[in-house]
Amino acid sequence: MRADARKNRDHVLAVAGAVIAEQGVDASMRDIARRADVGLATLLRHYPTREALLEALLRTSFDELTAKAGELESSSSPADGLVSWLRDCVTWTTEYRGVTVLMAAAIEDSESALHTSCVTLRAAGARLLTRAQEVGAARTDMDGTDLFALVAALAWLGDQPSLAPRADHLFGFVANALLTDAASNGSAGATPRG
Amino acid sequence: MRADARKNRDHVLAVAGAVIAEQGVDASMRDIARRADVGLATLLRHYPTREALLEALLRTSFDELTAKAGELESSSSPADGLVSWLRDCVTWTTEYRGVTVLMAAAIEDSESALHTSCVTLRAAGARLLTRAQEVGAARTDMDGTDLFALVAALAWLGDQPSLAPRADHLFGFVANALLTDAASNGSAGATPRG
Repeated sequence: MRADARKNRDHVLAVAGAVIAEQGVDASMRDIARRADVGLATLLRHYPTREALLEALLRTSFDELTAKAGELESSSSPADGLVSWLRDCVTWTTEYRGVTVLMAAAIEDSESALHTSCVTLRAAGARLLTRAQEVGAARTDMDGTDLFALVAALAWLGDQPSLAPRADHLFGFVANALLTDAASNGSAGATPRG
Repeated sequence: MRADARKNRDHVLAVAGAVIAEQGVDASMRDIARRADVGLATLLRHYPTREALLEALLRTSFDELTAKAGELESSSSPADGLVSWLRDCVTWTTEYRGVTVLMAAAIEDSESALHTSCVTLRAAGARLLTRAQEVGAARTDMDGTDLFALVAALAWLGDQPSLAPRADHLFGFVANALLTDAASNGSAGATPRG
């Protein structure tokens, strides 16, 4: 790609990020093109779908979360590592309102531009879960897909203005429920059982 | 209201129910009017907002769920009563795709036509939860708003085609986490801890 074409694409991406941060992932592609002062055809040449645009916007975050999971695989407490990573995931999804709906769709749609990143994230979470399960610190009837669904549901709660004030509390509830009693001493983010 | 006006409104409501069952709660009001063979103004005279239309469609279900909670308040097992009612709520929300988003908004918006019904439902759930808490069968750090949020999140999961296959399993996970160990023998719908 020529330098000016790359610069143009970077400009479009920056504007798209601002529009989506403002309006959520349902922002119209036409509106993004107008705000970036390019034609819709130009926008679609760079990013043929909404998912392709999100994939580009989220690329760095996806990589960071996957790298973080890799680091946590050698943390001293598998339970803490798991919960800390889940919290990072939930926090991150709040960056773009509505992104969890697209991610939930992408996880089973191999045609989606977000598919590979979602599958990679799910696998990273599954490894942390397995590690916690192996030391008896997490329930054994859950898997990476359950984790992915729980993160998505918690992120969705955080997206609903009326329920968002409870999102942290419910994160603690879910994290605590994932862990076994053996793990409950010193598990980050888990609230004590009532 | 005259008999023919009532008949006309009932017809509009029946068509709206069919369109919303098909397309979800985001179905366009214009589309509903066209399918019911009335003008948009007529539709809006009967149901000035999407929430008013949903409130009319869901009236019977709201009343049934509230009545069911009332009956369960005298069930022999407060834990079973609570879990059974939560399951009814989650099952019911799958009737109209997307309704949980509207309900989550309505619970804090006293202007919404759905507000009173949502508040009534939340109070009914809170009474079942309090009863279970009083006999030591449910966590004491949860309240009716937490329950409402959990039902909404589980309903949202059931709405996502890729995650829906896990919705039942995750319902069991959440129900189990709500209950204390003291309640876990014989609690309907809760899966054993791993």
